[in-house]
Amino acid sequence: MVDILHRVGIKAPLEEVYKALATRDGVAAWWTTNTQGESKVGGVLQFRFSDGAGVEIGGFEMKVLELHPATQVLWQVTGGPEEWIGTRIDWELRQEGEYVIVLFKHRGWKEPVEFMHHCGTKWAIFLMSLKSLLETGKGSPNPGDIKIDNWN
Amino acid sequence: MVDILHRVGIKAPLEEVYKALATRDGVAAWWTTNTQGESKVGGVLQFRFSDGAGVEIGGFEMKVLELHPATQVLWQVTGGPEEWIGTRIDWELRQEGEYVIVLFKHRGWKEPVEFMHHCGTKWAIFLMSLKSLLETGKGSPNPGDIKIDNWN
Repeated sequence: MVDILHRVGIKAPLEEVYKALATRDGVAAWWTTNTQGESKVGGVLQFRFSDGAGVEIGGFEMKVLELHPATQVLWQVTGGPEEWIGTRIDWELRQEGEYVIVLFKHRGWKEPVEFMHHCGTKWAIFLMSLKSLLETGKGSPNPGDIKIDNWN
Repeated sequence: MVDILHRVGIKAPLEEVYKALATRDGVAAWWTTNTQGESKVGGVLQFRFSDGAGVEIGGFEMKVLELHPATQVLWQVTGGPEEWIGTRIDWELRQEGEYVIVLFKHRGWKEPVEFMHHCGTKWAIFLMSLKSLLETGKGSPNPGDIKIDNWN
């Protein structure tokens, strides 16, 4: 088992950071504009992605396992690329001085395949999109996300 | 043992990407302007970092273990934060269509400490600085690097 781990610090109210992770409209503003479903415990969220030309290139389905205001959001992947199925995406929040610290863990990858390298970098890009959304009012969700390689 | 893994694709000649990793001046243009030492097998490189106000905040010393033109650069950390000592930083390159694919592995962390989360995100930022240097002529090395949290 190998994990993708990240940490960002965001200068914004803790409740706003939580809302950007715990609500459908929040996630749509930094990850992918095409976010559907219900963000409630036991609910399922669908995330769809397009390339620069507007062609759909895939997506993920996640079950919401935990929603603890101001402290944690936990998703389990139930649909998408084979390597993602069964993995968990864990968001932990806490206040530290003027920053909200976001600890991110995408856990449960079976093998450190090349696709995992890509996803590790891409998650960092989306965490910076989340930070930008909360600090400046503007995120860069897909399809306007920063491209990192030939896998997008 | 846990690893930080990343993947970027760079639209630039393979030999230029290699040079940006295998030479002191190359690394200084995307990681930290304060890069000293000799980039040759068995040589030692010193990387120093400053905060936004120009105050030195630490650095790393690395021994160059492997330099294989156009395919691989491998460093071993010999000085710096305790968690980094003994870890290895491995750069693998290959051409794939119009992209040079860079596979990055920072291997040998003993524990997935919070500092490792920070370093995982920060490496992604510096890989995007490398990509930008090669595609646009301008990287964002420290002290002009993008800050991600209260650890910089």
